[in-house]
Amino acid sequence: MKAIVYVTIKANVLDPQGNAVREALHALGFGEVGRVRIGKFMELELNTDDRAQAEARVREMCEKLLANTVIEDYRFELEG
Amino acid sequence: MKAIVYVTIKANVLDPQGNAVREALHALGFGEVGRVRIGKFMELELNTDDRAQAEARVREMCEKLLANTVIEDYRFELEG
Repeated sequence: MKAIVYVTIKANVLDPQGNAVREALHALGFGEVGRVRIGKFMELELNTDDRAQAEARVREMCEKLLANTVIEDYRFELEG
Repeated sequence: MKAIVYVTIKANVLDPQGNAVREALHALGFGEVGRVRIGKFMELELNTDDRAQAEARVREMCEKLLANTVIEDYRFELEG
């Protein structure tokens, strides 16, 4: 089974990396670009076939390691 | 309109960040985790309504700045 985890900076937290990318795009002539937000995604292969268990385990991984829940949100999908 | 760009490391390129995350998950007791690959995604607000033009422009942004096409693949979706 595969889990795809998306981690994003919470809407009310500043995203300096996103701002830097927007400025760089403007400097390259892409003036139509407004707000830019940058996140991470992670593909995890899981050696399990139990979907309900996998969901609980991936949630625990997110809370413990993959996301900093003070400033980040996460969501994930299970495939296969 | 909004563009969501996904940038991933090419399949045959080493992903040390992914390996570090896998090791950390194992150390935390998540032994069921196999391969981990880490990518980025970017949400860009675009001040345009022309979908075809937006597609061409976002492709250009990816080639010029957002992805390092030597070692990374990219794909994107347009919304709205």
